[in-house]
Order: sequence, then C-alpha cells, then structure tokens
Amino acid sequence: MTSIRSDARLEHSLYEITRLLEKHRVLEDLAHRQEGPKRDLLEGLQHRQNLAELQRRLRTMHAADVAFVLEALSPDDRTTVWEQLDPEQAGRVFVELSEAVLHSVIETTPRDRLVGTLMTLDPDDLGYLSEALPSDVVNEVSAAFELVDRQAFEASTRYDEDQVGHHMSHEWIAVAETHTIQQALSELRKRGELPPQTDRLFVVDARNILRGALTLPTLLLTDPGSPVVGCVEPETVSFGPSERVHQAASAFERYDLVSAPVVDDRGKLVGRLTVDAVMDFVRDEAELRALKRAGLTREEDLFAPPLDSARNRAPWLAVNLVTAFLASRVIGQFEHTIRELAALATLMPIVASIGGNTGNQTMAVMIRALAGDQVRGPGAVRLLNKEVIVSLLNGTVWGLIVGIAASTLYSSLALGAVMTAAVVLNLLVAAVAGVTIPLGLHSRGRDPAFGSSVLLTFVTDAMGFFLFLGLATAFLS
Amino acid sequence: MTSIRSDARLEHSLYEITRLLEKHRVLEDLAHRQEGPKRDLLEGLQHRQNLAELQRRLRTMHAADVAFVLEALSPDDRTTVWEQLDPEQAGRVFVELSEAVLHSVIETTPRDRLVGTLMTLDPDDLGYLSEALPSDVVNEVSAAFELVDRQAFEASTRYDEDQVGHHMSHEWIAVAETHTIQQALSELRKRGELPPQTDRLFVVDARNILRGALTLPTLLLTDPGSPVVGCVEPETVSFGPSERVHQAASAFERYDLVSAPVVDDRGKLVGRLTVDAVMDFVRDEAELRALKRAGLTREEDLFAPPLDSARNRAPWLAVNLVTAFLASRVIGQFEHTIRELAALATLMPIVASIGGNTGNQTMAVMIRALAGDQVRGPGAVRLLNKEVIVSLLNGTVWGLIVGIAASTLYSSLALGAVMTAAVVLNLLVAAVAGVTIPLGLHSRGRDPAFGSSVLLTFVTDAMGFFLFLGLATAFLS
Repeated sequence: MTSIRSDARLEHSLYEITRLLEKHRVLEDLAHRQEGPKRDLLEGLQHRQNLAELQRRLRTMHAADVAFVLEALSPDDRTTVWEQLDPEQAGRVFVELSEAVLHSVIETTPRDRLVGTLMTLDPDDLGYLSEALPSDVVNEVSAAFELVDRQAFEASTRYDEDQVGHHMSHEWIAVAETHTIQQALSELRKRGELPPQTDRLFVVDARNILRGALTLPTLLLTDPGSPVVGCVEPETVSFGPSERVHQAASAFERYDLVSAPVVDDRGKLVGRLTVDAVMDFVRDEAELRALKRAGLTREEDLFAPPLDSARNRAPWLAVNLVTAFLASRVIGQFEHTIRELAALATLMPIVASIGGNTGNQTMAVMIRALAGDQVRGPGAVRLLNKEVIVSLLNGTVWGLIVGIAASTLYSSLALGAVMTAAVVLNLLVAAVAGVTIPLGLHSRGRDPAFGSSVLLTFVTDAMGFFLFLGLATAFLS
Repeated sequence: MTSIRSDARLEHSLYEITRLLEKHRVLEDLAHRQEGPKRDLLEGLQHRQNLAELQRRLRTMHAADVAFVLEALSPDDRTTVWEQLDPEQAGRVFVELSEAVLHSVIETTPRDRLVGTLMTLDPDDLGYLSEALPSDVVNEVSAAFELVDRQAFEASTRYDEDQVGHHMSHEWIAVAETHTIQQALSELRKRGELPPQTDRLFVVDARNILRGALTLPTLLLTDPGSPVVGCVEPETVSFGPSERVHQAASAFERYDLVSAPVVDDRGKLVGRLTVDAVMDFVRDEAELRALKRAGLTREEDLFAPPLDSARNRAPWLAVNLVTAFLASRVIGQFEHTIRELAALATLMPIVASIGGNTGNQTMAVMIRALAGDQVRGPGAVRLLNKEVIVSLLNGTVWGLIVGIAASTLYSSLALGAVMTAAVVLNLLVAAVAGVTIPLGLHSRGRDPAFGSSVLLTFVTDAMGFFLFLGLATAFLS
C-alpha cells in the first residue's frame, strides 16, 4: 500500500540507472585493460554485483518507465540495460518503446532472445509490433499461438496503422441481452479478472450483434434482479474497424470515452478500442506532425547513427535544394538591374522573408482547422476572403515601415515605394498560398502539414524576388 | 437502445444544421425586404417553424457536437444557433468550446443570459472557464454557490492553467480504510450515481490521508466481507496540485490511467485528475505548439474579425521584420562585391535557405526530445556531436551538388568551390544553432518551440550571407 508522487519516481529511477551504468562502464574498462590471468578477482565480483543491482532495480520498475529510461540512454548503455531484462518484462517494455528506438533494439537483439521475448506477448501486442519486426520472426511467434490467438493476431495485422482495426483490442466482455444483472455479475466473478481499461461490458444478442453497453457503475448500483436489457446506456458510440483512428480519437475526446465497441458492417462486435491506445495515437500523431513539417518522414532515434540520420533527412533537403534553385533563377533574370543597383540584392530577402512568415501563420491556422474537419465548401471561400483582408491590413502597416526604412537608408523615395508595394503584394500572395496549399493537399487526401512549408516558402520566395526586382526594373531604371 | 457509428453522426448533424440555417437566412432576408404591414403571415409562420426545428435538432445533440458545429459556423450563424439553446445545454456546450470561439460567444451574449447559463455549471467547470469570463460575472455566479461548491471553485482558480490543480475535479468517492467491501458498496448505492470517469475509489485514513485506490473491478469481483484495506492496488500513482499537467499527462500515458488522486504535501486527498481532462490538455498543447512555432501567441478563431487576426499576428511579424533587416545588413556590407559579380545575389539565397531547412530539422528532433524530458547533461553534448557529423555528411553531399550546378551555370570553378564551402559551413552553423537554441530556451524555463524558428532563421540567413559573400570577396575578387 504505497502512494507515489509520479514526478519524483521517474527522475529518481533514471538517476539511479545512470549511476549504475557509469559504474558498469568503469568496471568494464578496468577488466579490458587487465587481460588474462592478471584480472582482479575482486573487480570481477564488483562487476557482477553491480549488474545484479541493476537487474534488481529494473525489476521493480514499470515497463513504461524502463522504456523511458532506454530511450534516454546511448546505444551502448541501452544494450546493457536491455540484456538485464527477463523475457516477460522485456516483452512489456517492447510495446512501450517509440518506433525509432524499437528498430534499434530489434537490430541488436539476437534472434533467439527476440523470439523468446515476443512469445510472452498477447496477439494484440504482437499485431501492434508486427510491422517493425522481421517477417520470419513474426511467423515463428504467431505459429506458436493457439488458434483463437492467431486469429486475433491476423485480424489486427489486416488493417493499416491509421485504421481503428490496427489499434483495437480483442479482449472484451460481452453479456447476452437476455441475462439479468445477477447473471452478468456471476459470469464476471467466474472470469476472475477484467481486461485493462474496462469501464463497460458490451451487450450483444444471440447473433453477436451489438445492442449497447452496460457500465461498471450501473452493474454496481443496480438491483441484481433487473434484466440487462433494461440497464444499457441509452446511446453507445461505436466505431468501424476501417474507420480512421484520427476520427475515433476526436470522438473519444468529444464524448469522454474510456472504451468503445468496434463493430463490422453488419453490426457484429469485433473488437474494443480503449482510451490508452487512442491517447498514444494522439500523442504520436502530434509529434510526427511537428517532424513532418520540418521534412522528416519518420521518427528518428535521438541517438541514431549519424549516417542513418543523414539519410533520413536527405530527401527533404534535396527537394528544398531544387525549390531554392528555382527561386534563385528568378533573381538570375534580374542580374543586370542588380549590377546597376546593388541595394536591391540587400533588400530582396526582406520581402521574401516577411512573405514566408505571414504565409506560415495563415497555414498554421488552416492546418489546425482542416485537422479538426471544420472547413467545408463555402467556409473555405470565406476564409480566403478573410485572410486576404488580414494580409492587406498587415501588409500596409509593415510595408510602410519597411519602405520608410529603405528610403531613409538609401536616400531614395522611389526605392521605398517599390519596397512597400512589393511587401503588400507578396503578403497577398502569401495569404492565397497559405489557404490554398493546405486545402489542396487535404482535398487530394494528403496530410495538409506534410511538405506544405517547403511549397509555401518556394512560392513566397520566388514571388517576393519577382515582385521586388520586377517593380524595381520597371520604375527605378 | 441505439448504437451509432460515430463518423456518420457528426457529419449528418452538421449537414442538417447548415441546411436549417440557410433556410433561416432566406426567411430573414424576405422578412426584412417586406416592411411593415405587408409582411406575409405565412412566411412568419415558416420562420418560426424553421427555428423550432433547429431547436429540436439541437436538443438531441451531445454538447460536444453542438460545440463542434458552433466552431465551424460563421459568427452570424453561430449567434443564431447559440440563441436556440436552453441554459442547461448552453452551459454544457460552453465547457466544450475552444478558447477562441469561447471569447467570441461570451462577447455577443447578453449579460443576463450569460449569468443564467453559468449558474447551471458545477464549480469545477466554472473554475475552468473563469479566466475567459468577465470577473464581475464570475463573482456574481460564484456568490450564488453553496459554501462547499464555492470552496471547490476557489481552489481550482488558485492554480495556473498548466498546473494539475487547475484541471482537477472536486468530485470523487473516498472510502475509509477501516470499512469492508460490503460497506463501501452500500455507501455507493446510497449515492445513487458515480462521478464521470470513475474507475477507482480512493481509500483514505481518518485524517483524509490517501492510503491507496480500490478499482471498480476489484469491488465487483471481491468477496463483500473482505476488508477494504486488503484489496487496495499495490501502487497508486498520485499527483500534486502544483505539478505541471504536462508531466501528469506523460504519467497517464505511461501507466494507462483513467483517473488518479491529487494529494497535497501532507498526503491529504484534495482532488481527482481524469483522463478526459488530460487528453484535452494534450491535444490543446499539441495544437498550440504548432501555432506557436508559426508565431501566433494564442489560439485564433477561424472566423475572427480580420482586424483581430491582424493584431494577433502583428507582434511576430515585427520581430521577423527586425531580424530580416539585420540579416540584410550583412549583405549591405558586400554591395561592392555584388556590383562586380551579380551572380552572387542570385546564389546567396540558396545557401541561406538550405541552412534554414537543415537547422529546422535538427530543431524539430531536439524539441521533441526536450518535450519528452529525455535530454540531460552529457546527452546534450553527445547530441551536439552527432548533429555536427550529420551536417558534415549532408553538407558535403549537397554542397558538392550545389557547387557543381553553380560552376556549370556560371562557367566558373572558383564560384562553385566558394558555393560548396559556404554550404558546408552554413550547415555546420545550422546544426549548432538547431541544438543550442531550443536547449537555451528550455534551460531558461521557456517553451523550446516558441520563437525558435525565427531565431534559427535569423542565424542561418545572416551566417549564410556572410559566409558566401565573405568567401566570394576573399577568393573571387
């Protein structure tokens, strides 16, 4: 009977593990330096004691905490810790690891140990991990499952990672609609325990068609003689296995759900979606979106080998290089004007930069709205109108300030006027691009965040250079 | 007893409401055009019938769905829908609205109606909303609360928005540790209902010190004669009211919690944190972070008046303007070189752009790591080393490609060499800035995402221009 403040616990565990690992490294170093028979017995003993203490410490920790510690460690330390876990705990830790670290652990674990660890998992968890694992390992492990488990495993691998079916659990408790509360209770007692995150039982008819849900509070508070059918929740939100998890997550948030039934097209109960799976998904999605905006296609292990990281980031850099080159060709067309008035080269990045910035602001608001499914036909037009007005307001204010600064700096009223006009027009371009780019990506079924930033910067750079240098060529020379 | 697929429901509601609102607008227009006695009786009747249908439709909807619909509507339509809600439902909808839309609704609602709506809320919800409301309204409403409710309300307003105390509920069920399961059950039955998201009761001693938790499954499955003290969970994760919600959210995710006790420094039970509050927070935080990166300080209503939007976005534009001006002054120092070789003006934005892009990639990985609390002392140094190596790898590859392209375009080997050197060096600058800027913001207690992008672009722009033009001045003229 202990109550632990969550913040202190993890901090303390990480500190202790790090201390034991430091000692481990020192002892390893000593052992390597003194080769052969000269190896000190006492040090060997210390080394073993240290590892035993590490094992003891790890065994008291929650699997999610061990995963957290593993992610914060360098690859060498990670392997040391990983080797100290017994298969049962290693399996639970496996499920909690982030994708990037999962890959590195799978690569460094010997095949036998990997199979042994995976054997301890239930089919839902194996399904969850299957995409990251070598397929021969998955086959060997799933072949050892009993029939019903193998079926559950195969069902969860049938769906994509962004579908409800991939994340649903195959453990739930169903009650026949013809039973009484008393009968439901005694069935529960026979089972002995409930699956995690069970806040309701699912009521089904003789053909396994979902009829509703019976919450645990109802079970506790209702007269045991009542028929189940009279106690079900008036409305049960359910999901389809091919529905997008993103949408299910919104529903969990809107209706404050803890668990919900998954039903197929005929209404038959096929799975259960729980709030922990949904929350993991929401968090992963938010993090991935931030990485995607910077042009990283997948999660990256903090301590991945530099070559892997370089490769992960290269494609996007290549795209950026091409767009930057294309934008620079716009400048190339005006080299004669720049030769006459080098001040243009100094001022043109300002026009491009302020356009990119306002466009990104518009886009951030748009992406948020699109992610929430709140933009539809006439709404999009209204939004575009609004953004155009905002850009004209901001463009006039900041364009004038920039223009005054430029004309003072170079003692040329005409240069200032060109600068102001270019800023106002480029902000208009930025507003239109900021609305239409994410809208275009979204309507073609793409994630509106992915690649939008590079596309937008290309437009605002190229148009910024073109507007400023074009106006200057027309009016200043 | 209905089971509804969540995806179809909301789509359908939004469609129906929009249809009723369109009809409403048409009828309003007609009414305005025909003034005085010429007003058609039949049309007036149609108008009233239409509004009644809207009311009926809204009354069958979940409060969160009404909030969703309100957010997707234009300000006029929003007011029409809002006016059709009775105080009870309006109160529930209030709690579900996003900050930006909440503000617009509060502004347009007459004071009397606002007070009437808020009177229907419980103290936790009023505490949650209090920062958005005029203080005299909050005072009037809270003065009408009973003593215990007023205390709960005051407790929740005592904490900041990022603290657990602000988000905790004051409704929970505590059981004395001296009771038996039977006694606990009969107390529950006396209450008649459980607070939402109750998956466990909290066990306390005579001084209200938390002793552990008793889950509903345990209550259901244990022999009623057993003493409560023998059935509590072996470990209960609890939080402090001043702890950061961000940390609590990580714990909810790690330990798959549905609800957890909040205890003060002496261990006394003071509140309950539930997964729905945590999930709302996680989502808001992720969305806010995306907006923050684009330089928006607060959430923005999609249909806010343009002047409000322009004002919301202006501060960041001003900062961007200053940094763009400063970076452009670097170019200003090299105007004589540019006059000689205008190609430099064409190529320099490429060096700056590729630097900004790689720096943003590094920063995205860093911000994610910092948000997960996974970077500590020696880890930071190791990360910096890694990012430097990655940047040298990518810099060499892309620098050579850019150099070859530039030397072909302008038939100058020397220009290509300068370009390659500038790209390699600026990528190095980007790596160092990408690691140190978020680290610096984080170690000073700031959000590592906020403002990091503008700072980084300033560094990579200024250094990109300086490196390229400086090398060109030294070696090409």
